Amino acid sequence: MSSASLPTSVYKLIKLWSRLPGVGEKTARRMVFFLLKQDPEWVAEFIRTVKQVKDDTHHCSECGNITDIEPCSICRDKMRNRKIMCVVESDEDCISIEQAGIFNGLYHVLGGQVSPLDEQDIPEESIEKLKERVVDLKIEEIILATAPRIEGDLTAFAIQEALKSIPVKISRLSYGLPVGGSIGYADRVTLHMAMESRKEMQ
Amino acid sequence: MSSASLPTSVYKLIKLWSRLPGVGEKTARRMVFFLLKQDPEWVAEFIRTVKQVKDDTHHCSECGNITDIEPCSICRDKMRNRKIMCVVESDEDCISIEQAGIFNGLYHVLGGQVSPLDEQDIPEESIEKLKERVVDLKIEEIILATAPRIEGDLTAFAIQEALKSIPVKISRLSYGLPVGGSIGYADRVTLHMAMESRKEMQ
Repeated sequence: MSSASLPTSVYKLIKLWSRLPGVGEKTARRMVFFLLKQDPEWVAEFIRTVKQVKDDTHHCSECGNITDIEPCSICRDKMRNRKIMCVVESDEDCISIEQAGIFNGLYHVLGGQVSPLDEQDIPEESIEKLKERVVDLKIEEIILATAPRIEGDLTAFAIQEALKSIPVKISRLSYGLPVGGSIGYADRVTLHMAMESRKEMQ
Repeated sequence: MSSASLPTSVYKLIKLWSRLPGVGEKTARRMVFFLLKQDPEWVAEFIRTVKQVKDDTHHCSECGNITDIEPCSICRDKMRNRKIMCVVESDEDCISIEQAGIFNGLYHVLGGQVSPLDEQDIPEESIEKLKERVVDLKIEEIILATAPRIEGDLTAFAIQEALKSIPVKISRLSYGLPVGGSIGYADRVTLHMAMESRKEMQ
């Protein structure tokens, strides 16, 4: 975009905002113009909260989840099933599963995935911490909730390998058709997986 | 989303961010988690720029466009064609046209549209200012670039009515198929408009 007719700060904020995930320059522009229309109080609160989020949060020293207390609210919750642990790649994935309300055990956030093409790997200390926790907490089942793609498969295999000397059941989320989707829109690989994992009806 | 497992500030920022145009709670969450991963310096600059945008800009007293100088860079540009004026609903629309590089005249930002269902109207002072500018600047052509929908039509008619006592040519952007689209995806109304406005090939 030409910056000629835009105030410098507006142009700069559009550029900064475009760095956010899934935001192109047009979307960034819409957001900046939205901010311009808000009350100064709203913008001040937005600024305050961005600062707070950055200043007041850290990763839980136990599970790696984002938190403002230590350990996090999930790790300290005695009502949860402390014998089952869901391993995710990121704190964002953890929130998705929490929001779905489908799991009541503990989490372990890896903070990375195995991705040879991007030269990325699971942080070593995160794997060590997982092994330590599985033993100390006497975990009975590990559920691998890594991404449903190649990197997620490699990550799952790496965790399986790391835990092979520890007697714990390891499972992984199933592949298949997304609920509410349609056969016509499903991709070939998903259809193949759904066919392979087909279940007999009762 | 349950806030139980999220730090308060994170939950609050997701809620604030969801208010932005085109952002649902999932997108807001992705953005907040993106921020959490950034350097403190990047976040500090982001905060500074949001504040600057709000503090340093205002609407040009001449055309109503967003600016940090008075009058704005477009109004003061002597190289532009000062006999032709493009009337838009918002400063955002003005930036879109500027970015396209298809117009070299002046602008007038209405700051509203006629929308009976939402009980909205063009601000009266904006119409008065437009009439005053058309006369004072001896504008020869007004191009109405209002939205291609009912509210934009009503807005265009309102401006036409307001200017009827002033001898100035008034035109409006054409309706038709969007370039790069396909016939199959065009909606019925657009196809109808494109048919009505068809042009003889040379």
